[in-house]
Amino acid sequence: MATKKLPAGVTRTDRTLMDGRTIRYYDTQGQVRSAEDQRPVEEQPSIGEMRLDPLNNEWVVMAAHRQNRIFLPPKELNPLAPSRPDALTEIPESDYEVVVFDNRSPSLRTMDQSPQIPTDLSFATAPAPAAGKCEVVCYTSNYDSSFKDLSEHQIRTVLEAWRDRTQELSQIPYIQHIAPFENRGEEVGVTLNHPHGQIYAYSYIPPKTERMLHVARAHFAKTGRVLLDDIVARELTDQVRIVASNDEWIAYVPYASRYPFEIHIAPRRSVADFIDLDEAASHSFAPIAKEVLQRLDGVFGVTMPYIASWHQAPVHEGRDVMRLHWQIQSVRRAPGKLKYLAGSESAFGAFMMDLKPEQSAQQLRDVKL
Amino acid sequence: MATKKLPAGVTRTDRTLMDGRTIRYYDTQGQVRSAEDQRPVEEQPSIGEMRLDPLNNEWVVMAAHRQNRIFLPPKELNPLAPSRPDALTEIPESDYEVVVFDNRSPSLRTMDQSPQIPTDLSFATAPAPAAGKCEVVCYTSNYDSSFKDLSEHQIRTVLEAWRDRTQELSQIPYIQHIAPFENRGEEVGVTLNHPHGQIYAYSYIPPKTERMLHVARAHFAKTGRVLLDDIVARELTDQVRIVASNDEWIAYVPYASRYPFEIHIAPRRSVADFIDLDEAASHSFAPIAKEVLQRLDGVFGVTMPYIASWHQAPVHEGRDVMRLHWQIQSVRRAPGKLKYLAGSESAFGAFMMDLKPEQSAQQLRDVKL
Repeated sequence: MATKKLPAGVTRTDRTLMDGRTIRYYDTQGQVRSAEDQRPVEEQPSIGEMRLDPLNNEWVVMAAHRQNRIFLPPKELNPLAPSRPDALTEIPESDYEVVVFDNRSPSLRTMDQSPQIPTDLSFATAPAPAAGKCEVVCYTSNYDSSFKDLSEHQIRTVLEAWRDRTQELSQIPYIQHIAPFENRGEEVGVTLNHPHGQIYAYSYIPPKTERMLHVARAHFAKTGRVLLDDIVARELTDQVRIVASNDEWIAYVPYASRYPFEIHIAPRRSVADFIDLDEAASHSFAPIAKEVLQRLDGVFGVTMPYIASWHQAPVHEGRDVMRLHWQIQSVRRAPGKLKYLAGSESAFGAFMMDLKPEQSAQQLRDVKL
Repeated sequence: MATKKLPAGVTRTDRTLMDGRTIRYYDTQGQVRSAEDQRPVEEQPSIGEMRLDPLNNEWVVMAAHRQNRIFLPPKELNPLAPSRPDALTEIPESDYEVVVFDNRSPSLRTMDQSPQIPTDLSFATAPAPAAGKCEVVCYTSNYDSSFKDLSEHQIRTVLEAWRDRTQELSQIPYIQHIAPFENRGEEVGVTLNHPHGQIYAYSYIPPKTERMLHVARAHFAKTGRVLLDDIVARELTDQVRIVASNDEWIAYVPYASRYPFEIHIAPRRSVADFIDLDEAASHSFAPIAKEVLQRLDGVFGVTMPYIASWHQAPVHEGRDVMRLHWQIQSVRRAPGKLKYLAGSESAFGAFMMDLKPEQSAQQLRDVKL
């Protein structure tokens, strides 16, 4: 049982699940993690493939999924709860703080030998193995919680898990990009309501990240400055779109937001990724994260669906031009109404917004906490 | 009352609605269109603005919409029905074949003077007016119909409307791209169930089209060939993904499809846009369109939600490398289940598919018509 010391008094203990997957316990109370996974061994499907969509030179992953994925189970069958003798789950221990385990039905899988993933893409590019890694991050053992309801201490432990995973997954030779994200709400297709996020480690730079990298490089070549530094500076000058801030972070509705409610949260000091985030910024993240998500749920007094995604520099490129930040996007535009990505957005990538960013920032600021 | 002769015996008659918008009647029986719009004049909101999203150098349109857009009205309040004395609608006539009218709440609006829309985009790019045009295409006066239920004659009239609109909208100096599309189903956010599509005429090349143009140009530079010609040739060689075909068109599930059910329909002969589509291909479109959409609804025996989008060469660029085709994408993966674009797809643009294109092509072919 390997135990590793991380910042902020967090320790990580690794255990192996019955089918060979790893589960990592992130603890702050010196817990011993010795529970064994009692479930029967299940066969793993083989790795899927990635095919190049030749119309836009983008990989599409064709996953070889297990059938019968669990879909909105009742609370007593929640696979992300701690195990009880009569209900064995993904987490063998009877309690936990934060855990990260390998996804049971991953779209991307690790390989013993590093695959050759082509990077100079064209119509003739052959399929490649769907190499990568998908992990599940349980934010708390409490089913009835949510990221915004976590204690600041707990959020710091989650942050250390994100940092640790970024660090470790970066060591896999064929991993190009590491993307922690959270889908919340059945409106965005969530099939497990337990508070959790995911981490995808891609063997290619995903299309939107590649585009951000390309644009950030062009900006740097033209101005000598990091693009997100200039964006943050503009938000601080304009003020009207700022939702919350503290000594280390600012949260703003972006100047050209694409969703009815969209908030970006960036550290004031330029850092490329979680690995570079210093103690002061790491410590100050929890309060602003809680405030922003509480404001989001406060706008209509309903639990808002959202996709929250961490954007950081890819593993092997662009550390000089890309900068860590968190994007929260909600499709809810009114209590009974969602924004759908229909023809213009979905087929042509052209976003149409009804609400001005300055208006939604005002609504978010007006929420009484 | 201007009347214009189009191919296939279609005539177009233009009328002006109370608020100045144009409605165009596409007829095949020599109808006279003289009905006046009897509704009170409504004030038009001013034009919105486009802001540059600096993270990826893409325009986002901030529309100045009217409030109180109509949302899933009951059949008797359907604004796309022909007018009756007791129910005045968007169409003043008491019957119609196909009409195209200017959208009452457009995201993009025309301007008297051509705006300067910057094309060399960067962080410093100033906002631009949301110039362009949004039109509504009513496929039939019959509320209980659907594209797949139209007669072949009726579909040909719709095609002539698409061609005519492409031709005319191309003449507006600041229009860069013309995109006919249809959203079907409340699952993709449709707010009016009457069978209809839309046409967006953009004053910029929309992001996904720009990407296709970039990739098609690279392919042409490398091989001297049109990308979609090579794609169609591969589909004809592989055969396994073909869903339907006739002398002039083929319909296939693309090699790297992104949606549970996705079908592309392309003319066998390379044409850049609707304007270049010859009589034989124009005539042969209706039967394959009907067959493909009937197969799609037949897979689960339910009415499938879809986004159907026409991709053609932009107005002023890429006519030598881009090629007309129709993409139909459905998010339904099972009778009770949808595919959602969650974290990986939405935030990173990385698509994960459960179903192989060859499997879904087989399912579509197996449908008994």
